[in-house]
Amino acid sequence: MLELRLVQGSLLKKVLEAIRELVTDANFDCSGTGFSLQAMDSSHVALVALLLRSEGFEHYRCDRNLSMGMNLNNMAKMLRCAGNDDIITIKADDGSDTVTFMFESPNQDKIADFEMKLMDIDSEHLGIPDSEYQAIVRMPSSEFSRICKDLSSIGDTVIISVTKEGVKFSTAGDIGTANIVCRQNKTVDKPEEATVIEMQEPVSLTFALRYMNSFTKASPLSDQVTISLSSELPVVVEYKIAEMGYIRFYLAPKIEEDEEMKS
Amino acid sequence: MLELRLVQGSLLKKVLEAIRELVTDANFDCSGTGFSLQAMDSSHVALVALLLRSEGFEHYRCDRNLSMGMNLNNMAKMLRCAGNDDIITIKADDGSDTVTFMFESPNQDKIADFEMKLMDIDSEHLGIPDSEYQAIVRMPSSEFSRICKDLSSIGDTVIISVTKEGVKFSTAGDIGTANIVCRQNKTVDKPEEATVIEMQEPVSLTFALRYMNSFTKASPLSDQVTISLSSELPVVVEYKIAEMGYIRFYLAPKIEEDEEMKS
Amino acid sequence: MLELRLVQGSLLKKVLEAIRELVTDANFDCSGTGFSLQAMDSSHVALVALLLRSEGFEHYRCDRNLSMGMNLNNMAKMLRCAGNDDIITIKADDGSDTVTFMFESPNQDKIADFEMKLMDIDSEHLGIPDSEYQAIVRMPSSEFSRICKDLSSIGDTVIISVTKEGVKFSTAGDIGTANIVCRQNKTVDKPEEATVIEMQEPVSLTFALRYMNSFTKASPLSDQVTISLSSELPVVVEYKIAEMGYIRFYLAPKIEEDEEMKS
Repeated sequence: MLELRLVQGSLLKKVLEAIRELVTDANFDCSGTGFSLQAMDSSHVALVALLLRSEGFEHYRCDRNLSMGMNLNNMAKMLRCAGNDDIITIKADDGSDTVTFMFESPNQDKIADFEMKLMDIDSEHLGIPDSEYQAIVRMPSSEFSRICKDLSSIGDTVIISVTKEGVKFSTAGDIGTANIVCRQNKTVDKPEEATVIEMQEPVSLTFALRYMNSFTKASPLSDQVTISLSSELPVVVEYKIAEMGYIRFYLAPKIEEDEEMKS
Repeated sequence: MLELRLVQGSLLKKVLEAIRELVTDANFDCSGTGFSLQAMDSSHVALVALLLRSEGFEHYRCDRNLSMGMNLNNMAKMLRCAGNDDIITIKADDGSDTVTFMFESPNQDKIADFEMKLMDIDSEHLGIPDSEYQAIVRMPSSEFSRICKDLSSIGDTVIISVTKEGVKFSTAGDIGTANIVCRQNKTVDKPEEATVIEMQEPVSLTFALRYMNSFTKASPLSDQVTISLSSELPVVVEYKIAEMGYIRFYLAPKIEEDEEMKS
Repeated sequence: MLELRLVQGSLLKKVLEAIRELVTDANFDCSGTGFSLQAMDSSHVALVALLLRSEGFEHYRCDRNLSMGMNLNNMAKMLRCAGNDDIITIKADDGSDTVTFMFESPNQDKIADFEMKLMDIDSEHLGIPDSEYQAIVRMPSSEFSRICKDLSSIGDTVIISVTKEGVKFSTAGDIGTANIVCRQNKTVDKPEEATVIEMQEPVSLTFALRYMNSFTKASPLSDQVTISLSSELPVVVEYKIAEMGYIRFYLAPKIEEDEEMKS
């Protein structure tokens, strides 16, 4: 039997909105450690990994490991019926082909339960090794989101270049070119507005803006985003979920001739 | 001659927005008692009844009973041109085939008059007898609106079940099922947030969500909605209009086999 | 070389949004006096004239007169990437076929440069003589915008009639007629809410609402709009740009038989 009670239910709503543009169907894996998901996007280019640790739940009961296949659009439809202040409980009986989402209003006047059919989904769990990155950029998630959206009006790809002084986002398209430079800034009044760069060596990589824009759907989950870059590895775009875990997006860089020569 | 002056003109704007999704053309009936309307929706399934009592108008002159056929979309187009703080006056000469809506801004700097052609509309006025209901639920109109909207993302019909403890709204569809229970709650700080149940006997009835959703367009008119239910009668969904009257929507329950057995 | 630095960059964003519905491609003319534009709309019915005087820029360097052909939709795409508090600098090298827009965030943490290709655009510059007008109406720009929008839901043209007491906007269409009268009002608490009429003689002219609605896209630039009317001249709809200049729209009146007789 599974029973996971999350006081801050809006968090689960935000998680779904963050990933359902990329992934249609996916297995949620439940174990003693936590509630997690790993899935490729439908075109098998990007990977999303979610972890909500058991300690983050008010009540966490998972008698045995369980993998629940869900259609994320249907799940999102149900979670949208939860109020932003509602407590959400996820329940499933062993061997059942359904999962139940229970929503309780803060004053307990309104209680809803939504039962959803589960699906059988083939999936392989990729092992993702810990890696060293040439450069790690931490910056306001709203800023990163705005930059990806702005550049999309000019071009299709973004070149992310990191130096000690800052990170540069560049694109080019039919109507012209654009460069946006964010300088390192650790001495801000509000820590969530900091831009911090940890760099082993300069790096410059090219990515499809379409995927970057999808990743930024996770911005409501965290004030800051971390972008980890190495020329031989997929970029990791991570949004921490306070006291619970994270959503990480992985995307391989594009190999472009002029980029090859630069790096 | 007809001249009806309504200081709170936004009220008439809200009335139009509340009914024009259901009804396209309708007769407004004007008598010494008040300004009223009764009309079936275009598929002849739901009935809407509006009353604005003469005492609610700052000035009310109606020399003889008058029935004015109006296209509600055109009337709504004109009323949307009134500011939310405007005073609205409805004027018509005896025997005229037009009606005039006059909008005065609060400081009298801007005065608009919109003249609309009237239509000949056949209509029969149904007598609606006063009835005893098995259960009457009074609840926040915004809550009822949210529930109907939420359930529409899962299914097409709603089962409304009333017990002494509360009222349950249920639906089922391809992706699963949903139940939302609102408990009776009379001891709230703000009276508009109360949920009050008057029950003679338990009742459980099924309705098309499409119509319920149309009815909730009247929510801006009133903080509370009253739902009156009996197994042999159409449900009445009523929104009171402060110090003036009401909008009432009538809808026959669906006869479903399993519902039949329950009741 | 050209380098124009505008501290209040949002102003340039608003200018673009004000004119890009009317004009697709246009030459921006840069001289020692200022940054200006004159263009006909694509159907050659309305004329727009923009002036931003050099004194309004924090830094203004224009070594020799320059005419830069730009696609306004592409330019608007780039300017939308500027934050509302950003400082905008327009740069061009002599003989270059590109223009660069630089956006600096207030704290200098983020610096963007967008380079756009210029176009060759044939254009003739019309001399617009200063004229005496029969009537000049100054009124809140939001009020004028609301009136044009409201009348558009009833008819296609607006008759603007000015008397000493006020200005009347009238229209007629299939569903009826509408008249909106704004009275002169100089004694308001906030000067931006005044409606002031300077009249030599009464005037009544007819215009296409479609163009009037386009002109009102400039409302965010100014709290007040000035409408100058004469029976023999195009109307001038002017939005002043504080301490910098103006946008003026010119539109010839429609010659309608019944209007001819009235005037």
